[in-house]
Amino acid sequence: MKKVEICLSPELIHLYDFKGKNVVIVDIFRATSTMMAALANGVASITPVMDLESCRTMEKEGYVIAGERDGKTAEGFTLGNSPLAYLGKKFADEKIAMTTTNGTVAIEKTRELAKNIILGAFVNIKATAEFLISQETDILILCAGWKGKFNLEDSLFAGALVSSLHPHFGTDCDTSIAMRSLYESNEHRLQVFMGQASHAKRLQNHNIESDIVFCLSQNIYDVIGILEDGKLVSR
Amino acid sequence: MKKVEICLSPELIHLYDFKGKNVVIVDIFRATSTMMAALANGVASITPVMDLESCRTMEKEGYVIAGERDGKTAEGFTLGNSPLAYLGKKFADEKIAMTTTNGTVAIEKTRELAKNIILGAFVNIKATAEFLISQETDILILCAGWKGKFNLEDSLFAGALVSSLHPHFGTDCDTSIAMRSLYESNEHRLQVFMGQASHAKRLQNHNIESDIVFCLSQNIYDVIGILEDGKLVSR
Repeated sequence: MKKVEICLSPELIHLYDFKGKNVVIVDIFRATSTMMAALANGVASITPVMDLESCRTMEKEGYVIAGERDGKTAEGFTLGNSPLAYLGKKFADEKIAMTTTNGTVAIEKTRELAKNIILGAFVNIKATAEFLISQETDILILCAGWKGKFNLEDSLFAGALVSSLHPHFGTDCDTSIAMRSLYESNEHRLQVFMGQASHAKRLQNHNIESDIVFCLSQNIYDVIGILEDGKLVSR
Repeated sequence: MKKVEICLSPELIHLYDFKGKNVVIVDIFRATSTMMAALANGVASITPVMDLESCRTMEKEGYVIAGERDGKTAEGFTLGNSPLAYLGKKFADEKIAMTTTNGTVAIEKTRELAKNIILGAFVNIKATAEFLISQETDILILCAGWKGKFNLEDSLFAGALVSSLHPHFGTDCDTSIAMRSLYESNEHRLQVFMGQASHAKRLQNHNIESDIVFCLSQNIYDVIGILEDGKLVSR
Protein backbone atom coordinates (compact mmCIF):
# COMPACT_ATOMS: atom_id res chain seq x y z
CA MET A 1 0.00 0.00 0.00
CA LYS A 2 1.26 3.46 -0.90
CA LYS A 3 1.98 5.82 1.99
CA VAL A 4 1.40 9.42 2.94
CA GLU A 5 3.84 11.32 5.14
CA ILE A 6 3.80 14.85 6.53
CA CYS A 7 6.80 17.14 7.01
CA LEU A 8 5.67 19.75 9.56
CA SER A 9 8.30 22.41 8.86
CA PRO A 10 10.82 23.39 6.17
CA GLU A 11 13.47 22.92 8.90
CA LEU A 12 12.79 19.17 8.82
CA ILE A 13 12.83 18.80 5.03
CA HIS A 14 16.29 17.15 4.98
CA LEU A 15 14.87 14.18 6.92
CA TYR A 16 12.49 13.22 4.10
CA ASP A 17 12.91 11.49 0.79
CA PHE A 18 11.09 13.03 -2.19
CA LYS A 19 12.23 10.59 -4.85
CA GLY A 20 9.38 9.61 -7.13
CA LYS A 21 6.81 11.03 -4.72
CA ASN A 22 3.91 13.35 -5.23
CA VAL A 23 4.86 16.37 -3.12
CA VAL A 24 2.05 18.60 -1.83
CA ILE A 25 3.12 22.11 -0.85
CA VAL A 26 0.98 23.75 1.85
CA ASP A 27 0.88 27.39 2.95
CA ILE A 28 -2.78 27.91 3.83
CA PHE A 29 -2.46 31.54 5.04
CA ARG A 30 -2.22 32.52 2.24
CA ALA A 31 0.17 31.52 -0.57
CA THR A 32 -1.26 28.19 -1.70
CA SER A 33 -4.89 29.23 -1.12
CA THR A 34 -4.31 32.39 -3.17
CA MET A 35 -2.60 30.44 -5.96
CA MET A 36 -5.55 28.04 -6.17
CA ALA A 37 -8.00 30.98 -6.25
CA ALA A 38 -5.99 32.53 -9.09
CA LEU A 39 -5.72 29.30 -11.09
CA ALA A 40 -9.39 28.42 -10.62
CA ASN A 41 -10.26 31.94 -11.78
CA GLY A 42 -8.53 31.45 -15.08
CA VAL A 43 -5.02 32.87 -14.76
CA ALA A 44 -2.74 31.31 -17.39
CA SER A 45 0.05 30.43 -14.94
CA ILE A 46 1.78 31.45 -11.72
CA THR A 47 5.55 31.71 -11.57
CA PRO A 48 6.70 31.48 -7.94
CA VAL A 49 9.48 33.95 -7.21
CA MET A 50 11.68 34.12 -4.11
CA ASP A 51 11.80 37.85 -3.43
CA LEU A 52 10.13 41.17 -4.21
CA GLU A 53 13.02 42.53 -6.31
CA SER A 54 13.14 39.55 -8.69
CA CYS A 55 9.38 39.71 -8.97
CA ARG A 56 9.35 43.43 -9.74
CA THR A 57 11.65 43.00 -12.77
CA MET A 58 9.18 40.52 -14.29
CA GLU A 59 6.54 43.18 -14.83
CA LYS A 60 8.41 44.35 -17.95
CA GLU A 61 8.19 40.83 -19.33
CA GLY A 62 4.42 40.99 -19.28
CA TYR A 63 3.71 39.42 -15.91
CA VAL A 64 1.18 40.77 -13.47
CA ILE A 65 3.20 40.95 -10.26
CA ALA A 66 1.92 39.89 -6.85
CA GLY A 67 3.79 40.48 -3.62
CA GLU A 68 3.16 41.34 -0.01
CA ARG A 69 5.15 42.91 2.75
CA ASP A 70 3.83 42.82 6.32
CA GLY A 71 0.46 41.53 5.17
CA LYS A 72 -0.17 44.34 2.65
CA THR A 73 0.37 44.74 -1.10
CA ALA A 74 4.06 45.60 -1.60
CA GLU A 75 4.81 49.05 -3.01
CA GLY A 76 4.56 49.16 -6.78
CA PHE A 77 2.86 45.75 -7.00
CA THR A 78 -0.49 45.18 -8.72
CA LEU A 79 -1.55 42.44 -6.32
CA GLY A 80 -0.88 41.46 -2.71
CA ASN A 81 -1.44 38.03 -1.25
CA SER A 82 -5.22 38.07 -0.91
CA PRO A 83 -7.09 35.27 -2.70
CA LEU A 84 -10.14 37.52 -3.02
CA ALA A 85 -8.40 39.75 -5.60
CA TYR A 86 -8.62 36.96 -8.22
CA LEU A 87 -12.33 36.21 -7.86
CA GLY A 88 -14.70 36.93 -10.76
CA LYS A 89 -11.96 35.97 -13.22
CA LYS A 90 -10.45 39.46 -12.87
CA PHE A 91 -7.02 38.27 -14.00
CA ALA A 92 -8.11 35.54 -16.42
CA ASP A 93 -5.48 34.59 -19.01
CA GLU A 94 -2.79 36.70 -17.34
CA LYS A 95 0.62 35.32 -16.40
CA ILE A 96 1.21 36.01 -12.70
CA ALA A 97 4.61 36.31 -10.98
CA MET A 98 4.12 35.85 -7.24
CA THR A 99 6.56 36.17 -4.35
CA THR A 100 6.41 33.26 -1.96
CA THR A 101 9.52 32.48 0.04
CA ASN A 102 8.36 29.18 1.51
CA GLY A 103 6.77 27.97 -1.70
CA THR A 104 9.78 28.81 -3.85
CA VAL A 105 12.21 27.12 -1.47
CA ALA A 106 10.04 24.01 -1.24
CA ILE A 107 9.79 23.79 -5.04
CA GLU A 108 13.54 24.29 -5.52
CA LYS A 109 14.37 21.60 -2.96
CA THR A 110 12.01 18.97 -4.31
CA ARG A 111 11.49 19.51 -8.05
CA GLU A 112 14.39 17.40 -9.29
CA LEU A 113 13.35 14.25 -7.47
CA ALA A 114 9.59 14.58 -7.03
CA LYS A 115 7.18 13.00 -9.49
CA ASN A 116 4.78 15.93 -9.25
CA ILE A 117 4.61 19.11 -7.20
CA ILE A 118 1.02 19.97 -6.30
CA LEU A 119 -0.58 22.85 -4.40
CA GLY A 120 -2.35 22.03 -1.15
CA ALA A 121 -5.32 24.19 -0.09
CA PHE A 122 -8.69 23.65 1.58
CA VAL A 123 -10.43 25.40 -1.32
CA ASN A 124 -9.86 22.39 -3.60
CA ILE A 125 -8.90 19.61 -1.19
CA LYS A 126 -11.31 17.04 -2.66
CA ALA A 127 -9.97 17.51 -6.20
CA THR A 128 -6.41 17.18 -4.91
CA ALA A 129 -7.25 14.03 -2.94
CA GLU A 130 -8.91 12.49 -6.01
CA PHE A 131 -5.88 13.27 -8.16
CA LEU A 132 -3.52 11.77 -5.57
CA ILE A 133 -5.65 8.63 -5.21
CA SER A 134 -5.67 8.18 -9.01
CA GLN A 135 -1.86 8.41 -9.09
CA GLU A 136 -1.11 5.50 -6.74
CA THR A 137 2.19 7.12 -5.76
CA ASP A 138 3.69 7.79 -2.30
CA ILE A 139 2.88 11.26 -1.02
CA LEU A 140 4.84 13.78 1.01
CA ILE A 141 2.93 16.79 2.36
CA LEU A 142 5.24 19.74 3.05
CA CYS A 143 3.93 22.33 5.48
CA ALA A 144 5.33 25.85 5.27
CA GLY A 145 4.92 26.40 9.02
CA TRP A 146 5.78 29.75 10.58
CA LYS A 147 9.39 30.86 10.86
CA GLY A 148 10.52 27.25 10.90
CA LYS A 149 8.03 26.15 13.55
CA PHE A 150 4.88 24.05 13.36
CA ASN A 151 1.75 26.02 12.55
CA LEU A 152 -1.85 25.11 13.07
CA GLU A 153 -3.40 25.90 9.69
CA ASP A 154 -0.92 23.98 7.55
CA SER A 155 -0.87 21.01 9.92
CA LEU A 156 -4.67 20.85 10.03
CA PHE A 157 -4.78 20.91 6.25
CA ALA A 158 -2.23 18.10 6.13
CA GLY A 159 -4.43 16.13 8.54
CA ALA A 160 -7.51 16.87 6.44
CA LEU A 161 -5.75 15.60 3.32
CA VAL A 162 -4.62 12.41 5.08
CA SER A 163 -8.22 11.96 6.23
CA SER A 164 -9.47 12.40 2.63
CA LEU A 165 -6.94 9.87 1.37
CA HIS A 166 -8.10 7.19 3.82
CA PRO A 167 -8.27 4.23 3.23
CA HIS A 168 -6.34 4.42 -0.03
CA PHE A 169 -3.01 5.30 1.59
CA GLY A 170 -1.20 3.91 4.62
CA THR A 171 -0.17 6.16 7.53
CA ASP A 172 2.85 4.53 9.16
CA CYS A 173 4.19 8.01 9.81
CA ASP A 174 3.41 9.31 13.34
CA THR A 175 2.85 12.79 11.96
CA SER A 176 0.12 11.54 9.61
CA ILE A 177 -1.60 9.63 12.43
CA ALA A 178 -1.49 12.66 14.74
CA MET A 179 -2.56 15.31 12.23
CA ARG A 180 -5.39 13.15 10.90
CA SER A 181 -6.70 12.77 14.47
CA LEU A 182 -6.23 16.50 15.14
CA TYR A 183 -8.24 17.38 12.04
CA GLU A 184 -11.00 14.83 12.54
CA SER A 185 -11.58 15.88 16.16
CA ASN A 186 -11.80 19.56 15.19
CA GLU A 187 -13.39 19.57 11.72
CA HIS A 188 -16.84 20.45 13.11
CA ARG A 189 -15.41 23.67 14.56
CA LEU A 190 -12.52 24.50 12.28
CA GLN A 191 -12.98 28.28 12.24
CA VAL A 192 -13.21 28.46 16.04
CA PHE A 193 -10.25 26.17 16.57
CA MET A 194 -8.20 28.09 14.02
CA GLY A 195 -9.18 31.31 15.75
CA GLN A 196 -6.70 30.37 18.49
CA ALA A 197 -3.80 30.04 16.05
CA SER A 198 -1.06 32.60 16.30
CA HIS A 199 -0.88 33.28 12.56
CA ALA A 200 -4.65 33.64 12.30
CA LYS A 201 -4.50 36.15 15.15
CA ARG A 202 -1.88 38.15 13.28
CA LEU A 203 -3.94 38.15 10.08
CA GLN A 204 -7.00 39.32 11.99
CA ASN A 205 -5.04 42.32 13.14
CA HIS A 206 -4.74 43.37 9.52
CA ASN A 207 -8.52 43.31 9.07
CA ILE A 208 -8.39 40.47 6.63
CA GLU A 209 -10.74 38.10 8.39
CA SER A 210 -12.48 37.55 5.06
CA ASP A 211 -9.24 36.07 3.72
CA ILE A 212 -9.18 33.62 6.64
CA VAL A 213 -12.77 32.55 6.04
CA PHE A 214 -11.95 32.04 2.37
CA CYS A 215 -8.75 30.07 3.04
CA LEU A 216 -10.62 27.70 5.40
CA SER A 217 -13.53 27.10 2.99
CA GLN A 218 -13.52 23.63 1.51
CA ASN A 219 -14.10 22.56 -2.08
CA ILE A 220 -15.01 25.82 -3.76
CA TYR A 221 -12.95 24.63 -6.74
CA ASP A 222 -12.63 21.32 -8.53
CA VAL A 223 -9.31 21.81 -10.30
CA ILE A 224 -5.84 21.06 -8.97
CA GLY A 225 -2.71 23.24 -9.09
CA ILE A 226 0.42 21.53 -10.41
CA LEU A 227 3.95 22.56 -11.40
CA GLU A 228 4.73 22.28 -15.13
CA ASP A 229 7.99 23.66 -16.56
CA GLY A 230 8.59 25.85 -13.50
CA LYS A 231 5.08 27.34 -13.55
CA LEU A 232 2.01 26.46 -11.56
CA VAL A 233 -0.99 25.72 -13.75
CA SER A 234 -4.46 24.29 -13.24
CA ARG A 235 -5.52 20.88 -14.45
CA MET B 1 0.48 35.23 32.13
CA LYS B 2 3.37 32.80 31.84
CA LYS B 3 3.49 30.65 28.71
CA VAL B 4 4.11 27.05 27.74
CA GLU B 5 5.67 26.14 24.40
CA ILE B 6 6.48 22.78 22.80
CA CYS B 7 9.49 21.98 20.62
CA LEU B 8 8.50 18.84 18.67
CA SER B 9 11.96 17.67 17.64
CA PRO B 10 15.62 18.22 18.57
CA GLU B 11 16.04 19.44 14.96
CA LEU B 12 13.97 22.53 15.82
CA ILE B 13 15.73 23.33 19.10
CA HIS B 14 17.64 26.32 17.62
CA LEU B 15 14.33 28.12 17.02
CA TYR B 16 13.53 28.30 20.74
CA ASP B 17 14.74 30.44 23.59
CA PHE B 18 15.54 28.64 26.87
CA LYS B 19 16.67 31.62 28.88
CA GLY B 20 15.22 31.57 32.40
CA LYS B 21 12.70 28.88 31.42
CA ASN B 22 11.78 25.62 33.01
CA VAL B 23 12.75 23.07 30.37
CA VAL B 24 10.95 19.71 30.40
CA ILE B 25 12.78 16.91 28.60
CA VAL B 26 10.53 14.19 27.15
CA ASP B 27 11.47 10.77 25.81
CA ILE B 28 8.50 8.61 26.81
CA PHE B 29 9.71 5.36 25.15
CA ARG B 30 11.70 4.94 27.32
CA ALA B 31 14.46 7.20 28.67
CA THR B 32 12.53 9.70 30.77
CA SER B 33 9.95 7.12 31.95
CA THR B 34 12.78 4.81 33.01
CA MET B 35 14.61 7.63 34.80
CA MET B 36 11.46 8.51 36.76
CA ALA B 37 10.93 4.85 37.68
CA ALA B 38 14.52 4.69 38.92
CA LEU B 39 14.33 7.94 40.91
CA ALA B 40 10.96 7.08 42.45
CA ASN B 41 12.38 3.70 43.44
CA GLY B 42 15.13 5.29 45.46
CA VAL B 43 18.22 5.50 43.26
CA ALA B 44 20.59 8.20 44.57
CA SER B 45 21.08 9.89 41.18
CA ILE B 46 21.21 9.33 37.43
CA THR B 47 24.09 10.68 35.38
CA PRO B 48 23.03 10.93 31.73
CA VAL B 49 25.82 9.84 29.40
CA MET B 50 26.00 10.26 25.63
CA ASP B 51 27.35 6.89 24.52
CA LEU B 52 27.92 3.31 25.62
CA GLU B 53 31.72 3.60 25.80
CA SER B 54 31.73 6.61 28.16
CA CYS B 55 29.11 4.87 30.25
CA ARG B 56 31.07 1.62 30.47
CA THR B 57 34.12 3.37 31.98
CA MET B 58 31.97 4.72 34.81
CA GLU B 59 31.40 1.26 36.28
CA LYS B 60 34.87 1.41 37.85
CA GLU B 61 33.87 4.63 39.60
CA GLY B 62 31.07 2.86 41.43
CA TYR B 63 28.19 3.54 39.07
CA VAL B 64 25.64 0.94 38.08
CA ILE B 65 25.65 1.25 34.30
CA ALA B 66 22.52 1.24 32.13
CA GLY B 67 22.57 1.11 28.37
CA GLU B 68 20.66 -0.36 25.48
CA ARG B 69 21.45 -1.26 21.94
CA ASP B 70 18.65 -2.17 19.54
CA GLY B 71 16.13 -2.35 22.37
CA LYS B 72 18.12 -4.82 24.50
CA THR B 73 20.59 -4.48 27.39
CA ALA B 74 23.96 -3.60 25.87
CA GLU B 75 26.72 -6.19 26.28
CA GLY B 76 28.46 -5.93 29.64
CA PHE B 77 25.82 -3.58 31.09
CA THR B 78 23.91 -4.31 34.30
CA LEU B 79 20.74 -2.60 33.11
CA GLY B 80 19.01 -1.89 29.80
CA ASN B 81 16.41 0.77 29.25
CA SER B 82 13.40 -0.93 30.84
CA PRO B 83 11.68 0.99 33.65
CA LEU B 84 10.52 -2.30 35.17
CA ALA B 85 14.08 -3.23 36.24
CA TYR B 86 14.01 -0.52 38.94
CA LEU B 87 10.72 -1.48 40.58
CA GLY B 88 10.69 -2.80 44.14
CA LYS B 89 13.58 -0.46 45.01
CA LYS B 90 16.03 -2.98 43.53
CA PHE B 91 18.67 -0.28 42.95
CA ALA B 92 17.89 2.00 45.88
CA ASP B 93 20.75 4.30 46.93
CA GLU B 94 22.83 3.36 43.88
CA LYS B 95 24.34 5.94 41.54
CA ILE B 96 23.24 5.12 37.99
CA ALA B 97 25.06 6.10 34.79
CA MET B 98 22.63 5.84 31.87
CA THR B 99 23.16 6.26 28.14
CA THR B 100 20.58 8.50 26.52
CA THR B 101 21.61 10.29 23.36
CA ASN B 102 18.59 12.57 23.07
CA GLY B 103 18.47 13.37 26.77
CA THR B 104 22.16 14.15 27.01
CA VAL B 105 22.08 16.44 23.95
CA ALA B 106 18.99 18.25 25.23
CA ILE B 107 20.60 18.79 28.64
CA GLU B 108 23.87 20.03 27.12
CA LYS B 109 22.08 22.48 24.84
CA THR B 110 19.83 23.98 27.50
CA ARG B 111 21.54 23.75 30.90
CA GLU B 112 23.44 27.04 30.77
CA LEU B 113 20.38 29.16 30.11
CA ALA B 114 17.48 27.20 31.57
CA LYS B 115 16.22 27.88 35.08
CA ASN B 116 15.56 24.18 35.71
CA ILE B 117 15.76 21.01 33.65
CA ILE B 118 12.98 18.59 34.57
CA LEU B 119 12.08 15.09 33.40
CA GLY B 120 8.77 14.66 31.58
CA ALA B 121 6.94 11.34 31.89
CA PHE B 122 3.34 10.14 32.21
CA VAL B 123 4.24 8.19 35.35
CA ASN B 124 4.51 11.39 37.40
CA ILE B 125 2.82 14.01 35.19
CA LYS B 126 0.65 15.45 37.97
CA ALA B 127 3.62 16.06 40.28
CA THR B 128 5.51 17.72 37.43
CA ALA B 129 2.55 19.94 36.54
CA GLU B 130 2.16 20.98 40.20
CA PHE B 131 5.84 21.84 40.43
CA LEU B 132 5.68 23.89 37.22
CA ILE B 133 2.56 25.74 38.35
CA SER B 134 4.24 26.59 41.68
CA GLN B 135 7.23 28.04 39.82
CA GLU B 136 5.38 30.69 37.77
CA THR B 137 8.07 30.51 35.09
CA ASP B 138 7.75 30.15 31.30
CA ILE B 139 8.00 26.54 30.18
CA LEU B 140 9.55 24.88 27.16
CA ILE B 141 8.74 21.19 26.57
CA LEU B 142 11.42 19.47 24.48
CA CYS B 143 10.32 16.28 22.72
CA ALA B 144 12.99 13.77 21.78
CA GLY B 145 11.06 12.64 18.70
CA TRP B 146 12.36 9.83 16.53
CA LYS B 147 15.44 10.35 14.34
CA GLY B 148 14.71 14.06 14.18
CA LYS B 149 11.03 13.64 13.29
CA PHE B 150 7.85 14.19 15.28
CA ASN B 151 6.75 11.19 17.29
CA LEU B 152 3.39 10.37 18.76
CA GLU B 153 4.25 9.42 22.34
CA ASP B 154 6.36 12.47 23.18
CA SER B 155 3.93 14.86 21.48
CA LEU B 156 0.95 13.34 23.29
CA PHE B 157 2.78 13.70 26.59
CA ALA B 158 3.55 17.35 25.77
CA GLY B 159 -0.15 17.86 25.02
CA ALA B 160 -1.11 16.13 28.28
CA LEU B 161 1.22 18.40 30.24
CA VAL B 162 -0.18 21.53 28.56
CA SER B 163 -3.66 20.23 29.41
CA SER B 164 -2.62 19.74 33.07
CA LEU B 165 -1.16 23.26 33.20
CA HIS B 166 -4.41 24.84 32.00
CA PRO B 167 -5.53 27.51 32.96
CA HIS B 168 -2.36 28.57 34.77
CA PHE B 169 -0.29 29.00 31.61
CA GLY B 170 -1.04 30.66 28.27
CA THR B 171 -0.75 28.73 24.99
CA ASP B 172 0.01 31.28 22.28
CA CYS B 173 2.19 28.67 20.63
CA ASP B 174 0.40 26.75 17.84
CA THR B 175 2.17 23.55 18.87
CA SER B 176 0.74 23.79 22.40
CA ILE B 177 -2.78 24.41 21.07
CA ALA B 178 -2.53 21.46 18.68
CA MET B 179 -0.94 18.94 21.04
CA ARG B 180 -3.35 19.80 23.85
CA SER B 181 -6.27 19.14 21.49
CA LEU B 182 -4.65 15.94 20.23
CA TYR B 183 -4.23 14.67 23.79
CA GLU B 184 -7.67 15.69 25.04
CA SER B 185 -9.44 14.06 22.10
CA ASN B 186 -7.54 10.79 22.59
CA GLU B 187 -7.02 10.53 26.36
CA HIS B 188 -9.91 8.08 26.77
CA ARG B 189 -8.18 5.64 24.41
CA LEU B 190 -4.51 6.44 24.84
CA GLN B 191 -3.21 2.86 24.63
CA VAL B 192 -5.21 2.13 21.47
CA PHE B 193 -4.22 5.39 19.81
CA MET B 194 -0.58 4.88 20.73
CA GLY B 195 -0.79 1.35 19.35
CA GLN B 196 -0.69 2.92 15.89
CA ALA B 197 2.56 4.76 16.56
CA SER B 198 5.59 3.63 14.66
CA HIS B 199 7.89 3.56 17.70
CA ALA B 200 5.34 1.61 19.75
CA LYS B 201 5.12 -0.88 16.91
CA ARG B 202 8.88 -1.30 16.98
CA LEU B 203 8.93 -1.82 20.75
CA GLN B 204 6.17 -4.42 20.48
CA ASN B 205 8.37 -6.40 18.14
CA HIS B 206 10.86 -6.76 20.98
CA ASN B 207 8.19 -8.27 23.24
CA ILE B 208 8.29 -5.38 25.65
CA GLU B 209 4.64 -4.49 25.61
CA SER B 210 4.74 -4.36 29.42
CA ASP B 211 7.21 -1.45 29.12
CA ILE B 212 4.74 0.41 26.90
CA VAL B 213 1.88 -0.12 29.32
CA PHE B 214 4.10 1.14 32.14
CA CYS B 215 5.33 4.21 30.20
CA LEU B 216 1.73 5.25 29.40
CA SER B 217 0.49 4.80 33.00
CA GLN B 218 -0.26 8.09 34.68
CA ASN B 219 0.63 9.25 38.19
CA ILE B 220 2.18 6.15 39.69
CA TYR B 221 4.71 8.45 41.36
CA ASP B 222 4.41 11.79 43.14
CA VAL B 223 8.01 12.99 42.94
CA ILE B 224 9.64 14.99 40.16
CA GLY B 225 12.98 14.41 38.42
CA ILE B 226 15.26 17.45 38.21
CA LEU B 227 18.86 18.17 37.17
CA GLU B 228 21.19 19.20 40.00
CA ASP B 229 24.95 19.54 39.42
CA GLY B 230 24.80 17.47 36.24
CA LYS B 231 22.84 14.64 37.84
CA LEU B 232 19.15 13.86 37.80
CA VAL B 233 17.67 13.50 41.26
CA SER B 234 14.18 13.23 42.72
CA ARG B 235 12.54 15.97 44.71
